[in-house]
Amino acid sequence: MRVKLTIAYEGTNYCGWQIQKNAVTVEQKVEEACRKLFSREIKLIGASRTDTGVHALGQVVVFEVETSIPVDRIPYAINAQLPNDIVVRDAIVVEDDFHPRYNAMNKTYEYRIHNADFPLPQNNRYCYFYHKKLDIIKMREAAGYFVGKHDFKAFCSAGSSVKTTVREIYMCEISYEDEVIVIRINGNGFLYNMVRIIAGTLIEIGTGKRYPDDIIDIINSKDRSKAGVTAPAKGLTLININY
Amino acid sequence: MRVKLTIAYEGTNYCGWQIQKNAVTVEQKVEEACRKLFSREIKLIGASRTDTGVHALGQVVVFEVETSIPVDRIPYAINAQLPNDIVVRDAIVVEDDFHPRYNAMNKTYEYRIHNADFPLPQNNRYCYFYHKKLDIIKMREAAGYFVGKHDFKAFCSAGSSVKTTVREIYMCEISYEDEVIVIRINGNGFLYNMVRIIAGTLIEIGTGKRYPDDIIDIINSKDRSKAGVTAPAKGLTLININY
Repeated sequence: MRVKLTIAYEGTNYCGWQIQKNAVTVEQKVEEACRKLFSREIKLIGASRTDTGVHALGQVVVFEVETSIPVDRIPYAINAQLPNDIVVRDAIVVEDDFHPRYNAMNKTYEYRIHNADFPLPQNNRYCYFYHKKLDIIKMREAAGYFVGKHDFKAFCSAGSSVKTTVREIYMCEISYEDEVIVIRINGNGFLYNMVRIIAGTLIEIGTGKRYPDDIIDIINSKDRSKAGVTAPAKGLTLININY
Repeated sequence: MRVKLTIAYEGTNYCGWQIQKNAVTVEQKVEEACRKLFSREIKLIGASRTDTGVHALGQVVVFEVETSIPVDRIPYAINAQLPNDIVVRDAIVVEDDFHPRYNAMNKTYEYRIHNADFPLPQNNRYCYFYHKKLDIIKMREAAGYFVGKHDFKAFCSAGSSVKTTVREIYMCEISYEDEVIVIRINGNGFLYNMVRIIAGTLIEIGTGKRYPDDIIDIINSKDRSKAGVTAPAKGLTLININY
């Protein structure tokens, strides 16, 4: 049967999702846990290649296995083999042709900025600390310009080999509570570092270095050098993937 | 001059606030940082003796010092000497007779319960994980019975030597978001382990083991054995102290 897992992790101690030589990754830990549990090699197909330090509440992976363990017990059984910073939240049986990347309808990410005079231990792991006061109203205005179908080439880091850099953003909202600014973005797909470059650009708008409607020109330029810096990985969390 | 600091910390790695022999405490770390900064012994007076594993966003301490460092720079200077899990958020000069315990008008604590089938790395440090589904409506109803001036002897652990066990609770509210139940409680003072015993009792009401109006009988009994268990320290955070 084909099993779909939903996985949460704190990315702090991992070199991202995807298996690499000479580096500890989340995929490796999950693969090892599956190998121990099912006593055979398990090949995982992940939905999203989160980078070093990026977190997830809803990473999705799929694998094939024959097992007598009821599917609703699989999370408990895999979790027993995993470190505390990786947790399987759900397991269901899916169709044989289900693919976690190709079948994804949309994904939601959150980028969290702790905007205060002093960092807080409570926000250390999941927020980027930024002490200069940010103008949330301007950031909200700017966020609106990302919504829609655009060529996001200016918001894609080098090293990507995608066929097209056109993506559709369905939602880009900014909330604020207890000193934390949350950029919540949902779209049909995201380019390499896209959310972190959007966050870095929105921060520059929040400081007044750029204007909200600069977003239009940056998108139209299709030039990475026109957008803002890539904001640090620790602020980013993959929230969920809808199918 | 007399300086009042507001301090945040993650309690995970400390044996509580107060200095002890043979154990690392938050007070010790802050005292050491002050000693390094001011090149002399500094005696701190803390507002709240948080227990091992309890966190704070707004612990308050006071000390006497003669220094040329402007008061608004003191947090930066002390933070430079502190580990990442302790942060001074604010420093102001107060009157010579200001006392962080005696002058406190009220304090707010939060107790956080991650109520879900599986724990999340994101909630590991600041929530008590409880997998059995809790009835929040019943917990809310019960929370209301704590509000008012009562003798909370039934909600006080042994080992306390206070003159009176009467305290006034101004607010006890329960919110729920993203699988996390937050008990937020404000009052003119709290007995030893009081918030954790209240949380433990509310959890037992949430499971259906007790009824909401049992709170009335438990308070009236003045008998610790009638209340629920003391919920684990990791879920508790001292939010703020108002003067």
